[in-house]
Amino acid sequence: MKSTWRADLMAGAIVAVLLIPQSLAYAMLAGLPPQVGLYASLLPLLAYAALGSSPVLGLGPVAVLALMIAQALAGLPAGVSAEAGALVLAAEVGALLGLAALLRLDALSSLLSVPALRGFENGATLMIAAGQLPVLLGSAAAGFTLPDLATSAVHGGLRPVSAVWGGGAVALLLLSRRAGPRLLARLAPLLLLVGAMGLSAFTPAASGVAQVGALPSLALPLALPSLDKPLWLQLLPSAALVGLMAFVSSLAVSESLAQRRGEKLLPAAELRGLAAANLVASFTGGMPVAGSFSRSILLHEAGSRSRWSLVFVAVFMLLAMLLLARPLAYLPKPVLAATILVAVLGGFTLRHYREAWAYARAEGLLMAAVTAAVLLWSVGAALALGVVGSIALLLQRTARPHVARIGRVPGTHHYRNVERHVVECRPEVVGLRIDESLVFTNARGLVDVVLALVAEHRAKVGEPRRVLLLMGPVNHIDVSGLVALQELHAALAAEDLGLEFSEVKGPVLDRLKAVGWLERYHVPLYLSHHQGIQAGEHALRPSLADHDAPGQL
Amino acid sequence: MKSTWRADLMAGAIVAVLLIPQSLAYAMLAGLPPQVGLYASLLPLLAYAALGSSPVLGLGPVAVLALMIAQALAGLPAGVSAEAGALVLAAEVGALLGLAALLRLDALSSLLSVPALRGFENGATLMIAAGQLPVLLGSAAAGFTLPDLATSAVHGGLRPVSAVWGGGAVALLLLSRRAGPRLLARLAPLLLLVGAMGLSAFTPAASGVAQVGALPSLALPLALPSLDKPLWLQLLPSAALVGLMAFVSSLAVSESLAQRRGEKLLPAAELRGLAAANLVASFTGGMPVAGSFSRSILLHEAGSRSRWSLVFVAVFMLLAMLLLARPLAYLPKPVLAATILVAVLGGFTLRHYREAWAYARAEGLLMAAVTAAVLLWSVGAALALGVVGSIALLLQRTARPHVARIGRVPGTHHYRNVERHVVECRPEVVGLRIDESLVFTNARGLVDVVLALVAEHRAKVGEPRRVLLLMGPVNHIDVSGLVALQELHAALAAEDLGLEFSEVKGPVLDRLKAVGWLERYHVPLYLSHHQGIQAGEHALRPSLADHDAPGQL
Repeated sequence: MKSTWRADLMAGAIVAVLLIPQSLAYAMLAGLPPQVGLYASLLPLLAYAALGSSPVLGLGPVAVLALMIAQALAGLPAGVSAEAGALVLAAEVGALLGLAALLRLDALSSLLSVPALRGFENGATLMIAAGQLPVLLGSAAAGFTLPDLATSAVHGGLRPVSAVWGGGAVALLLLSRRAGPRLLARLAPLLLLVGAMGLSAFTPAASGVAQVGALPSLALPLALPSLDKPLWLQLLPSAALVGLMAFVSSLAVSESLAQRRGEKLLPAAELRGLAAANLVASFTGGMPVAGSFSRSILLHEAGSRSRWSLVFVAVFMLLAMLLLARPLAYLPKPVLAATILVAVLGGFTLRHYREAWAYARAEGLLMAAVTAAVLLWSVGAALALGVVGSIALLLQRTARPHVARIGRVPGTHHYRNVERHVVECRPEVVGLRIDESLVFTNARGLVDVVLALVAEHRAKVGEPRRVLLLMGPVNHIDVSGLVALQELHAALAAEDLGLEFSEVKGPVLDRLKAVGWLERYHVPLYLSHHQGIQAGEHALRPSLADHDAPGQL
Repeated sequence: MKSTWRADLMAGAIVAVLLIPQSLAYAMLAGLPPQVGLYASLLPLLAYAALGSSPVLGLGPVAVLALMIAQALAGLPAGVSAEAGALVLAAEVGALLGLAALLRLDALSSLLSVPALRGFENGATLMIAAGQLPVLLGSAAAGFTLPDLATSAVHGGLRPVSAVWGGGAVALLLLSRRAGPRLLARLAPLLLLVGAMGLSAFTPAASGVAQVGALPSLALPLALPSLDKPLWLQLLPSAALVGLMAFVSSLAVSESLAQRRGEKLLPAAELRGLAAANLVASFTGGMPVAGSFSRSILLHEAGSRSRWSLVFVAVFMLLAMLLLARPLAYLPKPVLAATILVAVLGGFTLRHYREAWAYARAEGLLMAAVTAAVLLWSVGAALALGVVGSIALLLQRTARPHVARIGRVPGTHHYRNVERHVVECRPEVVGLRIDESLVFTNARGLVDVVLALVAEHRAKVGEPRRVLLLMGPVNHIDVSGLVALQELHAALAAEDLGLEFSEVKGPVLDRLKAVGWLERYHVPLYLSHHQGIQAGEHALRPSLADHDAPGQL
């Protein structure tokens, strides 16, 4: 027990060393004063530790979310400060995640396909890096898209002294990563920050370089976020996207670590933990938070064993707040920008595009389009494009259900696809295998597909009198699927063909029986496809008990 | 050939008789002058006849779309007339449908599940009927939601003379439906309109009743819609919903009639036809158009054989325009409201809610929620709720892929679910059947599901060394599914378990081979599951040619 505490304390200390510079930097990236990042790294961690489920989720400010927050807050009405907007945004994110937890909507994490998520994260990485370049170089350029940045860079100027600070910081960080031992690489950002503050405070080397500036006293501001209704409505769409991204990115890292650690992760508990953390952030002067990829990996590698490690992180952050209160004013902004630049660019890779393109052109294109949308349009539009595009591609591919015409493998009771096997078909019955669940995304195509296969049977085998559907692969039929089966029944009846089922799965059969569907449409049911093919016009209708018994083959 | 022309002429005449009153009424319902409905029933029909594919699509103004148009135009900025707004809306609907046709997105029609569509149509029917009651009764009440209508009805007053005209018209229409021959029921709305115009023009009986009033001269106004950018942006979300609804509702009726008629329908051609019709409507003073359920059925029953019948409808509409130009001014509005009321209420039914509820609670609730959203919120919100709700229910149900642990049926080479059959399992290999395609909606759950089944095998059968996935039911693996398989490979490797596949379908195998996936992850491949179970650690890797040949069983 004691060793668990010691391990968590150690992991907490190591992660705090990374979180201190990141929290300051990501707050600046979100267009907020740096102390907001510290506030967001304090009590929200305790909220997640109380309600979440992963022992290694590096909760706090994250870079991608910071970019989304910056764009969401860019359109605030006059008179509303960015800090006030961030609190409202965090409250909405917390409330939406809490609502999703209540409605058990953790499956919403599936809304973002891998190509959409990777395309978005890569685009955000590039955009964050591009946005830090002017700060690094002392240019006044700013903007949320590459064209805006480029346009404003023309008249943005350049301060050599800033560029020296920024370039020097980048060089030191890269050097510590490449050359030094692992411990040095982890300590480097914090050492750099402390060193830069000292250099800037006690020497004239920083004259002309933008500094963070004097902060209000660092006391945790406990207050409710503004309850201004138009402001809430304005930020709601952004909050929905930030919430989705916070949940999906946190779940992705905590799930993959749980698998690696052989632990069980509860998505519903993650949702609750994130909701609580964001609500607490909104009451304690913070900004929306999520699980960071780099800090979660670090927690795992540093040996965190329980969520107590997050409590220790919060304690170290409190210490940092007390120690950093005064010197923070001297921190040169180019140095902060350098830590952001180096931190995010490590996550960028072109490999994903190549791989997706090689495997599936359309998904590779979607990934690239989402990245381009981040760079040229906005993070909100890019995320919406990713969700809608993924669904459109899936609908496009699944609009027609997969149905195979099957025949008997000679000498057996088995039925296989006529396209792939040498099989026997009897003229009077069309044997078809429905290869997937019948749901609204493919239901509309069912009648068309079946009628085409019936026509094929008619042309190649003979005039049929019945159509026997092997329903074994069907796991679920929703209301749209049921209506499609009704339409199929009517369309077949119009050609004087009977509709029959075989090998219907238990759960599917239960629901059909619950509404008396088979009786109403006079659909005979067979335990095995072979029975159905052999049967005459008047079929047996075995009871459910029969059907569930170990069947004949 | 001659008889085809005669049949189409006849069908055109019969449908025009229904379209004349409907076009006037639905324009009024959309908050537009009645002649807009006539304009929308003229050249757009020719555009569809040229590019569409159904010989029986009753194109023109439709009630549900009219309600959506009314709500979209309610928020127009000062200085923009409803007519100008309707033209922009039609142009946007046409452009969006055209874009969808270019990108071959006809699968987008699957976005609306049956419960969402029926819930929406029922809600729209009720809302349209409720909205016509004040017109019928001479009340000044108005509003787009039931609460708004009820609130304004308190002070809306009531004109007995209007109520007499309106109530009388409803009674006559219902009587003609119930009592008279079918022909009379079809002629009734037109006869009623002509009779009412005559009575109202030549007698004092209409004094105090709201009339349509003098119209500008009925000359087809050929002009481009306004190109005001803010106006286009404001109407774009409504246009997307109107376009989706126009496509889905048109396709639903034209597809079901095509099946009944044994004809082939091309969804892509429907998309083109609808796009062209709406673009033409935007240049010729119209409003967004779609296929009407009642008029399409009528075209079919009246014997339409080709899209020439629509051309004849347009010719008759032109005649009607010339004849109706003057007398239209005298038409009492309560009579027009009566034709709307009787036309839409025929489509309302509670049966769908009962059936959906009995079959699947969640889908029944969604249907009711969409209807309630139409009545209490807005058509746009209701349609969005229907789309998002359907996808959420599907994600919720499919978030975990269906995977069965399978064993050998004694004495055979066949493998069945251990839960449902008496089968034999070998300790050293876990046999699993993946029962559906691996796509982004279920990919995230794969590792969890498989690891749980491996743990079950370990507890009940023994310590395994390999996991053999029977991939027969998998029709498709998208990039997210592929990544999930990679994660599964890593998770199994962490437990010292090998991952192997059997019975992979040809198209799925082709793509895996294209990126060298099986080699990269060292996944052995077996022609049949039985082979895989029997095999030792060093597996054969049959070539694609072997795999595609008629296999052993």
